[in-house]
Amino acid sequence: MRNTERVRAVYARIAEVDRPEIWITLRPEEDVAAEAAAVDPGLPLAGLLLAVKDNIDVSGLPTTAACPAFAYEPAETAPAIARLVAAGAVVIGKTNLDQFATGLVGTRSPYGAVRDAWRPDRVSGGSSSGSAVAVALGIADVGIGTDTAGSGRVPAAFGGIVGVKPTRGVVPNLGAVPACRTLDCITTLARDLDTASRAAAVMAGPDHRDPTTRAWAANAPLAAPPRPLVGVPGADTLPGLTVAAARAFAVAADRLAAAGAEVVDLDATPFIEAGRLLYDGAFVAERHAAVGEFVDAHPVEVDPTVGAIISSAGRLAARDLVADGERLDRLRLQAQVQLAGLDAILLPTTTAQPTIAEVVADPVGANARLGAFTNCANLLDLCAVAVPAGEADGGRFGVSVLAPAFADRVAAGVAALLLDAEAPGDGLGPTGVEVLVVGAHRSGQPLNHELTSRGARLRGVAWTAPAYRLYALATAPPKPGLVRVAEDGVPIEGELWELPRTALGDFVAALPAPMALGRATLQDGREVVGFTCETAALDGAPDISEHGSWPAYLRVVV
Amino acid sequence: MRNTERVRAVYARIAEVDRPEIWITLRPEEDVAAEAAAVDPGLPLAGLLLAVKDNIDVSGLPTTAACPAFAYEPAETAPAIARLVAAGAVVIGKTNLDQFATGLVGTRSPYGAVRDAWRPDRVSGGSSSGSAVAVALGIADVGIGTDTAGSGRVPAAFGGIVGVKPTRGVVPNLGAVPACRTLDCITTLARDLDTASRAAAVMAGPDHRDPTTRAWAANAPLAAPPRPLVGVPGADTLPGLTVAAARAFAVAADRLAAAGAEVVDLDATPFIEAGRLLYDGAFVAERHAAVGEFVDAHPVEVDPTVGAIISSAGRLAARDLVADGERLDRLRLQAQVQLAGLDAILLPTTTAQPTIAEVVADPVGANARLGAFTNCANLLDLCAVAVPAGEADGGRFGVSVLAPAFADRVAAGVAALLLDAEAPGDGLGPTGVEVLVVGAHRSGQPLNHELTSRGARLRGVAWTAPAYRLYALATAPPKPGLVRVAEDGVPIEGELWELPRTALGDFVAALPAPMALGRATLQDGREVVGFTCETAALDGAPDISEHGSWPAYLRVVV
Repeated sequence: MRNTERVRAVYARIAEVDRPEIWITLRPEEDVAAEAAAVDPGLPLAGLLLAVKDNIDVSGLPTTAACPAFAYEPAETAPAIARLVAAGAVVIGKTNLDQFATGLVGTRSPYGAVRDAWRPDRVSGGSSSGSAVAVALGIADVGIGTDTAGSGRVPAAFGGIVGVKPTRGVVPNLGAVPACRTLDCITTLARDLDTASRAAAVMAGPDHRDPTTRAWAANAPLAAPPRPLVGVPGADTLPGLTVAAARAFAVAADRLAAAGAEVVDLDATPFIEAGRLLYDGAFVAERHAAVGEFVDAHPVEVDPTVGAIISSAGRLAARDLVADGERLDRLRLQAQVQLAGLDAILLPTTTAQPTIAEVVADPVGANARLGAFTNCANLLDLCAVAVPAGEADGGRFGVSVLAPAFADRVAAGVAALLLDAEAPGDGLGPTGVEVLVVGAHRSGQPLNHELTSRGARLRGVAWTAPAYRLYALATAPPKPGLVRVAEDGVPIEGELWELPRTALGDFVAALPAPMALGRATLQDGREVVGFTCETAALDGAPDISEHGSWPAYLRVVV
Repeated sequence: MRNTERVRAVYARIAEVDRPEIWITLRPEEDVAAEAAAVDPGLPLAGLLLAVKDNIDVSGLPTTAACPAFAYEPAETAPAIARLVAAGAVVIGKTNLDQFATGLVGTRSPYGAVRDAWRPDRVSGGSSSGSAVAVALGIADVGIGTDTAGSGRVPAAFGGIVGVKPTRGVVPNLGAVPACRTLDCITTLARDLDTASRAAAVMAGPDHRDPTTRAWAANAPLAAPPRPLVGVPGADTLPGLTVAAARAFAVAADRLAAAGAEVVDLDATPFIEAGRLLYDGAFVAERHAAVGEFVDAHPVEVDPTVGAIISSAGRLAARDLVADGERLDRLRLQAQVQLAGLDAILLPTTTAQPTIAEVVADPVGANARLGAFTNCANLLDLCAVAVPAGEADGGRFGVSVLAPAFADRVAAGVAALLLDAEAPGDGLGPTGVEVLVVGAHRSGQPLNHELTSRGARLRGVAWTAPAYRLYALATAPPKPGLVRVAEDGVPIEGELWELPRTALGDFVAALPAPMALGRATLQDGREVVGFTCETAALDGAPDISEHGSWPAYLRVVV
């Protein structure tokens, strides 16, 4: 019954905070409590309470996209949400948003401007405004957003929570009302990185009905290296930062360096210029292709700012969209020059948090400023993690870690450094091949970089079955030979590493004699890829099995 | 001096054929002869004579794109051509084309309609018309074309020659006048597959200045499997084929089956429908973005048909281009369903060859019909090889092998079956990692499919250094253990296979005990990846080194 009590507490909290604008549809407490009570507690997300942005379909609840005249009853739950529910999460309700996910403010909705969680005179940020505030105020455990320009990150920054924007296409967009079909991305919001990343991991995976989904690249890194190289622009080169925000950004960069990253200077110009193309150029035509027919036919029923943006996008020329594609390609080349050799980059998540009154006075300008650092991510095919980074100007301040497509685990690993947290173990990212290493490739040993530079991640210490002997080979650097024996075998301690599939191929291709990779049996009976060596290398090699591991032997002989 | 004589003969042939419309700029014979004489005969393309389509830059010669008013003097040779020249090829001249590469007929040029090589009243096909006819008539060894809708394949079909259209982006487009920037592809034309594929291989490789270039995928197959599965639509389902062409297509399919392919039925509908989007939809806006400003400003100086197509493309709406992108994505999903499990598909290259008079009477309709089967390739990200396949209706008939992006070696391998030729050894495609196999993975042995199903290709028989012993292991299926020894070693015969890098990782991940992959030394001293086995597996295993190879041992014991 713990889940049921949790639901009671959350509904009490909903009443307590008195933020009716968070919700477009809130499910009845009894329904949610009954569903939560029935969840299998063994499921990975058992009992997590979900707030779903109301441009994503949940069967049984209307989808409005914050436009009552547009509302429909979806026949099917979006696969991303269905996967969360299958993993034990329970939907509380559908949340408010900037209409048609067109906005970064959270005010463009007939269901009410969503007020900031902490400073109600300010905007919450959007367009995933309701989901973010529901998480920030401790109502939902996970808020589901969508992010085209920054809709999953800007409200995370103002709410002081974590926003995970996966690599475009790893989460299917099916069942979400498109904003820009080729750039949209379903995201997660949570109070901690692990929860946000685990929920995103559950949503990920191709759906054969959705042409925008992509499988993980076979060479995608599985972890940030132990000392990630992170590009950070000087705060004075970034537009729209207040003095306090610039200071908070510099503090975050220092914190990252102190936590073990190597911070290097970055020219953010191509990122910021690429971002400008999203609204100032012709890409906004995607918004017209998505819902323009409806918007043009319902001038009175749509938000005036949103309607104006989408309707005017219908008049853009195809040749300009093509030209913008070329401009973007050139900026991508420039961004790639900046990214070369880096594991990730750090940017402020957004600019100063406007009041609701300021947005009413200048709805387009105030909105545009908020996307200065987020707009580029989907255009340049980057993944991003937005994390809290203290305060500035009386509100929450946030920074974002951006990394190349499919490097979601790298972005999360760098974000974890900023949060003084562990990199999410079961978080969003690809999986690889497990390899048992017992010698020079172990952590702290001379060849460990051959794993970490290939995007490998450490799964932990592991012991072989009691069926091996360990020999000290006459190699340079010194290496052990792990040999399976028919009798007198002992368990040998090693480390289990996970390698990207392509990287494993490259690793094998570069393996020097007498080392070889075959099969190793672990103590728990599992078979994994493991090192062995050529038979001839054992001639005259001392049996060091009594030490139990290579490092233990080294400690004695050195 | 052999190259010089070759040049003399070719210039005599140019005079003999009396087809001035082939050339926009023909280099002086003396210049070409001098350059040919100076070529290092050890270069891979030493002395091959090149005809370059006049929308690709060659320093020292004007680029016209078949529009005199558009002509400019390029400062630099396009990297694709520069690489051919660096490999020993010699440019004869720049060839005629449908203006701005907008056409599949070869008649849309102020430099004259290019007549078919064999039936001068017919069109040559285009837009790479001059390059194709120069090759078909035995003048150039390699014609360089560009192919957006089929410009490198349609004229190959009519000329009875081979056209290789690489995977989009593996050859840099830098220095070529764009037609549709995101869909263009520089191609090769030659009288045989090996020459066309080798020349394409030389052109391939990323150029960091060109955002449309792509590196080979790490999992790209390196060869067609021994019995490729090829989808072939029924001729009755294909629009625009004459009875004779349908018969010739069926004969080609039978020939492919007889040569060792497994031919299965294919629904070509999504391919043909996707192709229709290229001119009937909004993608043609790319042509306006490329040269529309010039065309709009020079209404008199451009070909009226080309001018009308490009100018009207300037009036298309961005929202329609977005909608066509979505339509294409849906058709791509349908095409992927058809392609699932197939190695390649076979289509007629084009429809019936019109007379020049027919094209004059109906310039747009006659042109559109020619692209029915070629238009889809770049839109759906397929590579293609067009090959001759007999005759039909008094002219040459051609078929095309299409394969997914980066499977260029598979397409060439299947095309080789049709031509009763060897798959091009140094042809276009990625490279992998060499692995020595001595046992059950060899050709004809029970686990050989583990290599061929992963896109591996056989490089040939290879012997180890005389430093090994071979043992018969007690495994199922039976396998040999190759063991390096300090003394009494002998050479052991095996096969050298090349595996895609990702596939090698997958292969290692699936390797069962007691087998292992390490380093093997070949007879010539080269070190490659090679099989060994765990030491314990040798206990009681008979030494079979005297047989020299595993198959030799099997012949004796079975």
